[in-house]
Amino acid sequence: MIRVSFQGERGAYSEGAALVFFDNNEKIETIPLPSFAEVLNSTISKDTDYSILPVENSIEGSVGESYDLLYSTPLMVIGEVYHKIEHCLIGSGDMTDVDTVYSHPQALGQCRRFLQENNIRTVPTYDTAGSVKIVKDMGKKNVACIASKNASQIYAVPIIKSGIADNPNNFTRFLVLRVNNGKGDGMKCDGNNSKCKTSIIFSIKHEQGALYRVMEKMQRYGINMTKIESRPKKDTPWEYNFFVDFEGNQIDEKVSKMLSEIKQDTLFMKILGTYPLARYC
Amino acid sequence: MIRVSFQGERGAYSEGAALVFFDNNEKIETIPLPSFAEVLNSTISKDTDYSILPVENSIEGSVGESYDLLYSTPLMVIGEVYHKIEHCLIGSGDMTDVDTVYSHPQALGQCRRFLQENNIRTVPTYDTAGSVKIVKDMGKKNVACIASKNASQIYAVPIIKSGIADNPNNFTRFLVLRVNNGKGDGMKCDGNNSKCKTSIIFSIKHEQGALYRVMEKMQRYGINMTKIESRPKKDTPWEYNFFVDFEGNQIDEKVSKMLSEIKQDTLFMKILGTYPLARYC
Repeated sequence: MIRVSFQGERGAYSEGAALVFFDNNEKIETIPLPSFAEVLNSTISKDTDYSILPVENSIEGSVGESYDLLYSTPLMVIGEVYHKIEHCLIGSGDMTDVDTVYSHPQALGQCRRFLQENNIRTVPTYDTAGSVKIVKDMGKKNVACIASKNASQIYAVPIIKSGIADNPNNFTRFLVLRVNNGKGDGMKCDGNNSKCKTSIIFSIKHEQGALYRVMEKMQRYGINMTKIESRPKKDTPWEYNFFVDFEGNQIDEKVSKMLSEIKQDTLFMKILGTYPLARYC
Repeated sequence: MIRVSFQGERGAYSEGAALVFFDNNEKIETIPLPSFAEVLNSTISKDTDYSILPVENSIEGSVGESYDLLYSTPLMVIGEVYHKIEHCLIGSGDMTDVDTVYSHPQALGQCRRFLQENNIRTVPTYDTAGSVKIVKDMGKKNVACIASKNASQIYAVPIIKSGIADNPNNFTRFLVLRVNNGKGDGMKCDGNNSKCKTSIIFSIKHEQGALYRVMEKMQRYGINMTKIESRPKKDTPWEYNFFVDFEGNQIDEKVSKMLSEIKQDTLFMKILGTYPLARYC
């Protein structure tokens, strides 16, 4: 059995992403936990084999809390997955019955147009899948919720309408982590650099040109940076840690040379992992 | 009368920042509004003269919603202010009475250690100042809340204990905006470049080295970048708009030359404003 921990209730989008990543393998067991920290801790303490962690949504942007946990985690990243977020209106009534909708504020916000057009009152809840449980317990035809198709199936509450989000381009990127084997080899990523991605974290001196010097090295080695994210350092206000993803394998000679050069320009550098690059569509 | 709109209830940290920015000028009238969008709209429609908008907290990081609004706003930035966030325990009882605390989840999170040490149950609310209203209405000695000193004074509920946050380095940076006069002159910022800050937004081609080329120009002109933030484009997943702050005045010859060079490398560029650089301590 492969045990994967995720944050949220059963039927959460995170659980869906885990199932997609492991190809709906029958040997997958998904473990729901209340917080991101508990998800990672369960893998650190070997209660689970893998953690799945949302790091960025294509509409809402980066998940700050996840990045802060990546900074301090001893786990390594061994994969990424892009999961399409498809919000459904779920409840026991018909479209004409519904006047109240429960869901996470982010899901409510992403379906604003639909809710306004249908003059529906909204009630914020802790998470999307949890709102299906609430609506089921209430058993009222006028009360529905917004969650995934998965959640509708798990709690056996029917979908009234699917595809109700304002913007159909709604994807979340997740990272998959496991205990660091010390070899930095991640999952099988034997392909050439354009098929691998490497994630690093670094902090730089608080002086002019410090970030530029790192980027200059990536440019000189012809490395394609796919993402840069800054997160505040907790101890010194307005100084940052940078999270960078780029195409390439850390064991490739060119990449490894670049990384050791970058290391000299940084106060701190950590390689989160090399893993196969996923396409989101 | 100078009218300044802010998000939240009276006594919110945003209101405190507005009062600090305008030196507690007696002619200031602060207007509370429920959302960031309504705050900016009130200035666009000239119901208020200025908007104050939180853009970044030194612990939690950037406020994504604010950056998304800056992208589309016709307003210009005319100032910045760093405001210290000092969480206080507020209620009618003593420390020994309190077993339940109401506040915004972020404030509860920032006082986690204090709450755990005192074995206090937490109840999340919509905002910090609003939780003072709730606690006042309840009138129970065992129920307190976390909010600013300002909020304690406004609602006349005493401070039980101040300085209860885990990390004392808790600052929020706010921008002050007003209608664009078309001259790009902002507030008086006649000093040399090291006393001015300029904020720009740009998007770049989705190709290797595109961000590097912009940074290379800033480096070549000796410009000190103080902040870089990426926010997702809403229409194309995994493409970004970049928000950059740097020291310098847009009317300075060197800066203006650099900006026109950068413009050629970008798909879109907008100057949010030049304003006097504020120190946070």
